[in-house]
Amino acid sequence: MNAVFSTTYEIDNKYSTKYHERFVKFLKYVQENDLVVDGAMTDPKGDRGKSPSAQDDPDLYLHVVERREDGIVVRGAKAHQTGATNSHEILVMPTVSMKPEDKDYSISFAVPTDAPGIVMIIGRQSCDTRKLEDSPLDVGNLRYGGMEALIVFDDVFIPNERIFMDGETEFSGMLVERFAGYHRQSYACKTGVGDVLIGAAAVAADYNGVPKASHIKDKLIEMNHLNETIWSSALACSYSGWKTQSGNYMCDLLLANVCKQNVTRFPYEISRLAQDIAGGMMVTTPSEKDLRSEEVGKYVEKYLKGVSDVPTEDRIRIMRLIENLCLGTAAVGYLTESMHGAGSPQAQRIMIARQSNMEEKKRFAKHIAMIKKA
Amino acid sequence: MNAVFSTTYEIDNKYSTKYHERFVKFLKYVQENDLVVDGAMTDPKGDRGKSPSAQDDPDLYLHVVERREDGIVVRGAKAHQTGATNSHEILVMPTVSMKPEDKDYSISFAVPTDAPGIVMIIGRQSCDTRKLEDSPLDVGNLRYGGMEALIVFDDVFIPNERIFMDGETEFSGMLVERFAGYHRQSYACKTGVGDVLIGAAAVAADYNGVPKASHIKDKLIEMNHLNETIWSSALACSYSGWKTQSGNYMCDLLLANVCKQNVTRFPYEISRLAQDIAGGMMVTTPSEKDLRSEEVGKYVEKYLKGVSDVPTEDRIRIMRLIENLCLGTAAVGYLTESMHGAGSPQAQRIMIARQSNMEEKKRFAKHIAMIKKA
Amino acid sequence: MNAVFSTTYEIDNKYSTKYHERFVKFLKYVQENDLVVDGAMTDPKGDRGKSPSAQDDPDLYLHVVERREDGIVVRGAKAHQTGATNSHEILVMPTVSMKPEDKDYSISFAVPTDAPGIVMIIGRQSCDTRKLEDSPLDVGNLRYGGMEALIVFDDVFIPNERIFMDGETEFSGMLVERFAGYHRQSYACKTGVGDVLIGAAAVAADYNGVPKASHIKDKLIEMNHLNETIWSSALACSYSGWKTQSGNYMCDLLLANVCKQNVTRFPYEISRLAQDIAGGMMVTTPSEKDLRSEEVGKYVEKYLKGVSDVPTEDRIRIMRLIENLCLGTAAVGYLTESMHGAGSPQAQRIMIARQSNMEEKKRFAKHIAMIKKA
Amino acid sequence: MNAVFSTTYEIDNKYSTKYHERFVKFLKYVQENDLVVDGAMTDPKGDRGKSPSAQDDPDLYLHVVERREDGIVVRGAKAHQTGATNSHEILVMPTVSMKPEDKDYSISFAVPTDAPGIVMIIGRQSCDTRKLEDSPLDVGNLRYGGMEALIVFDDVFIPNERIFMDGETEFSGMLVERFAGYHRQSYACKTGVGDVLIGAAAVAADYNGVPKASHIKDKLIEMNHLNETIWSSALACSYSGWKTQSGNYMCDLLLANVCKQNVTRFPYEISRLAQDIAGGMMVTTPSEKDLRSEEVGKYVEKYLKGVSDVPTEDRIRIMRLIENLCLGTAAVGYLTESMHGAGSPQAQRIMIARQSNMEEKKRFAKHIAMIKKA
Repeated sequence: MNAVFSTTYEIDNKYSTKYHERFVKFLKYVQENDLVVDGAMTDPKGDRGKSPSAQDDPDLYLHVVERREDGIVVRGAKAHQTGATNSHEILVMPTVSMKPEDKDYSISFAVPTDAPGIVMIIGRQSCDTRKLEDSPLDVGNLRYGGMEALIVFDDVFIPNERIFMDGETEFSGMLVERFAGYHRQSYACKTGVGDVLIGAAAVAADYNGVPKASHIKDKLIEMNHLNETIWSSALACSYSGWKTQSGNYMCDLLLANVCKQNVTRFPYEISRLAQDIAGGMMVTTPSEKDLRSEEVGKYVEKYLKGVSDVPTEDRIRIMRLIENLCLGTAAVGYLTESMHGAGSPQAQRIMIARQSNMEEKKRFAKHIAMIKKA
Repeated sequence: MNAVFSTTYEIDNKYSTKYHERFVKFLKYVQENDLVVDGAMTDPKGDRGKSPSAQDDPDLYLHVVERREDGIVVRGAKAHQTGATNSHEILVMPTVSMKPEDKDYSISFAVPTDAPGIVMIIGRQSCDTRKLEDSPLDVGNLRYGGMEALIVFDDVFIPNERIFMDGETEFSGMLVERFAGYHRQSYACKTGVGDVLIGAAAVAADYNGVPKASHIKDKLIEMNHLNETIWSSALACSYSGWKTQSGNYMCDLLLANVCKQNVTRFPYEISRLAQDIAGGMMVTTPSEKDLRSEEVGKYVEKYLKGVSDVPTEDRIRIMRLIENLCLGTAAVGYLTESMHGAGSPQAQRIMIARQSNMEEKKRFAKHIAMIKKA
Repeated sequence: MNAVFSTTYEIDNKYSTKYHERFVKFLKYVQENDLVVDGAMTDPKGDRGKSPSAQDDPDLYLHVVERREDGIVVRGAKAHQTGATNSHEILVMPTVSMKPEDKDYSISFAVPTDAPGIVMIIGRQSCDTRKLEDSPLDVGNLRYGGMEALIVFDDVFIPNERIFMDGETEFSGMLVERFAGYHRQSYACKTGVGDVLIGAAAVAADYNGVPKASHIKDKLIEMNHLNETIWSSALACSYSGWKTQSGNYMCDLLLANVCKQNVTRFPYEISRLAQDIAGGMMVTTPSEKDLRSEEVGKYVEKYLKGVSDVPTEDRIRIMRLIENLCLGTAAVGYLTESMHGAGSPQAQRIMIARQSNMEEKKRFAKHIAMIKKA
Repeated sequence: MNAVFSTTYEIDNKYSTKYHERFVKFLKYVQENDLVVDGAMTDPKGDRGKSPSAQDDPDLYLHVVERREDGIVVRGAKAHQTGATNSHEILVMPTVSMKPEDKDYSISFAVPTDAPGIVMIIGRQSCDTRKLEDSPLDVGNLRYGGMEALIVFDDVFIPNERIFMDGETEFSGMLVERFAGYHRQSYACKTGVGDVLIGAAAVAADYNGVPKASHIKDKLIEMNHLNETIWSSALACSYSGWKTQSGNYMCDLLLANVCKQNVTRFPYEISRLAQDIAGGMMVTTPSEKDLRSEEVGKYVEKYLKGVSDVPTEDRIRIMRLIENLCLGTAAVGYLTESMHGAGSPQAQRIMIARQSNMEEKKRFAKHIAMIKKA
């Protein structure tokens, strides 16, 4: 929301459009009605070697297919939309910096999730159907979850008052950059998941009877260290925010991208260390049905026991939670989404390059080396 | 098999037992009948802070519970047994170096998988039930798979001629070390899985339209580099083998442990890079049922298209294979088993410490630093 | 200074001593006279396996050897004191958490650097004598430098009004922890050195003619990413400060330790990447004397030329700066001091363990896994 | 030598030249007289963005400047030549794969190091002048060392019988690739240096009194693990050699490049860990002159003492050796040369890409994913 807020303000400044006013109205409506809004940026993109308007199928980037007096009709899709199914509204933004020939693709608007022409198709997640089995223990994480949707816009009408950008191609880059900045800052959320996984690994170590082994303690420290390093960048980019023309605040883009870049790495290592601590039982534990079975339940109960004072079932519970976070439904969010959410690693690297002020650093070096040439 | 072959020979040398002769007879039987043998080492271990005979439940390490004229009766279990269900025989070995008080636990023998008292309980794997759904596409890897069993020995009788060690506690360490050495060498197998994952990532890059992006090429190089580094140690420890007293060959233990230690790290990084290259579609692709659906199939077909000349279904196939290897059934073997199979990382570190000849290295350093003191 | 300020306040609260008042007086004196103060914590420590009072030589930790009406006499040393030679005053603090038997070692005071009995012995640095040769070019970094001193206290008298702790062993841990916290936060300084090294590597790439090679650009991005990750934790721990009883502010100890822990790693990788970009010339460039030589100067001039429009001498200058930062006098500060300054890596890991609130994380995990047992 | 041996054989096969016969004659002369030969490949290269014949100064790659009946005259230089000053002969080879327009640069020959027109200019190394001071202790490593020369060919005459390639541009790639392959294999040598550094760190831990601290033991294991991983690839590429047309053996090029690529990384980490174990004393120890000084020698002796039964001087010796290997003259060889010797990291990555047989891996993946399209 922040990104659209500040960008519409700057578009209006240049073109005397009314986008900002419209957006503020929409924002108030959202706040007054306490609505959930899905910020939808990522297009399917088709052949990634080609620009939006150069795709064989023009719909692989969402675009305007018809213009009416009272609004526009759009076609296309937004992919990988976490939380879309539990949102009231979708706020659409372009997914890349556009060139003049991509005018019809430089579009931003809001639309209710149940508007005519909108279709959502849910993606499969690793272990998704465990939730449908009658084995709650095997789910590992009964309290929380999420899913991703492909949102199809099959000729959806958008009334004028919900359009926040339409053809101002040179502002698409700013909008993408700012939305991505906020979004990358928000990957601080992964440190919360990290906390749970670190806690789960520590519980597993307790149940295995090795909480005091020096290598176990050291691995828990390393997990915390990595997790807090992510947290550091998230905090730092927030504290270092700056005021945009519109009056709202933008996080520091360099540090927000550094934050997200670390998120593409450290959760994988934290997950690896959790698997190290948990032990092989994490992937070889028999099903709840076997645990409850009259025939073999006694064996599962007996041989999966860890330390004496912890019930076997509790040990299984913690193993299933770790499995859920490292390989199951939650791994989709903790690992692969940490990689690609809010932009793939290479997207952050490009931003880091742009924000690094290399010319200043070269000047520092030349000054100290007493090189006169600029 | 090699470990038991050479260790029984050395036990016989010391105690004039007949283990080696018995084992050779068993080995011939196996070879003549082309049988598959599961080498079963890992006990459940219960409270890992306690030795076998100090556990509250004495059965948490497999042991002799009765001695008869014609053989012994054993009770306990072997955990995490990959391939057990498709084996004809189980070759049991102790799981740790034993002390004198663990005499009844220092036991090695062979027994058919269908002997009375043997019960196998299969572990759940991530995404295991996809194989039971009517959606072959979602399985990702229809050709290959495996599973792990908890093998319970509920008072199983072992005839004398199949006993290869019984109470020679001081040889349990040698047997464990040698079996682990061979087993760690054999983790070369993960480079084959790595080859498939590297190939899959490259195909995904082709289908996404970015095979020539420099960062994609660089990531594929890194994956190959890591995979071949594992392969190097596997080759090197094999080439550097030495002849045991029994006449068979033992791989170099230092390099075999180095090999396995790298296997606890590099497949995780290779998997991370594969997820980077594949893109978010790897975890958000709708089900085969949606692809085949009359209602929404056309949308899946249209919007999951990559480069023009590749059918959407093929793109989905490669994404499902990558999902299978990074999060699904095959991830159990490629990741968590790479961590814990043939011993956990710390077990290899202990062996690396033992095999590193630190005293020689200290002498080198003192010699160069001209320190006279020994 | 901050650590002594807040700790003296809390000691006084407990013991009704006058340390804080004394310290504030000293602080005002320092501020009014614009003095440089060396915060001296690290004792030589001798056998690190033994506590202060258990050393064979009691002086290996600084301690009180005589008590007079008007003050105390101390003996011992403080090691690795960067900047000591250009300081006016030394502020001594204990180096570890003390036990009751180490009463005479729990001492904090200030003393002028030229007080009777104080001897400073400068440590050698890599390439230190290049500054004494008549070859400024070979120095690499003519503008900046520093050095480390061993400060010996050979029975130095400290008047009462300069004593800020004397025997309150249970406060030594707080003082160490707080001083270390501030000091670890201050390792943000290494990102400044990192900026220079990144700039120097970029200039070297320009001069070598490869600024646009994709792997070079990628390595510069990585260097910036690592450098800014350090910066993040330094900022975050500062922003998250909290008010002590005395009224001054303490940085967040967890994040300060995370900051320093990254400093023990990333400068090494940044340095490695700088060496990668610079090329072998960084360590094989002939001396300035050869460059200026009538006989061979022309060869050096001709064959060390990079791109046509940059003088060979400038290319040499930048190589010498990189050498200085990676192997020379500045490497002492940028690498080894990054490792051990403000405490060795293990010291930070112990603090990270203490500050991580593992019990809360275990509760989170148990809650989600629906484990009732506490 | 091996590379020229096999390549000349294949050139002769194609062009009926006599290079191989000439080379064998030279080789016998070398062996009979027990001569040291410097294999000289690396040209200065000037602007790395330009090919040999496109440089502003044509001499920045060594080339033929005159052709006579009895031989050729060459001009140019070879840079970074370790061991050149203690060699009897120089065996020159081209440094990159050449194109038809680079005919005069595609030249290989042997020449005595004292031939007219050859000038060697020695490069400076970090801490080089410590060897000239009267302080042997400060040198750290009195037994071993080396240095690098820039070899200038100022119109050097090469008689026909010593020319082994002259203008066969299409074979320059083969010669470079093979020489580089052998050379990268030979970086096994760094594991020997690694052994010394690991030993030195272990001695330092002993002298510091912390040989049993679990984190110290773990770091020594990690150092050994990394060192032996390098050794693995060196062994594996050697064992997997193949017979060339000429009858000699070529190491496996993929694994040789993998070996060298690890050498560009692991010595840096081993060095970092050594600095961690050694402690700050490694860079702050006063000079030998201070140790021997009448005035302050007693302080150095007293306060640099570690465990009681080791003389302070021995502790200083081991610190100086570690300094020598991590920052001093030996660091040039152990670190920066590990990076750039036998080709920079990117050169190995290009070779790994070429040797990885990606098409086969893609076929594997498609087969398992049941993709029919080739």
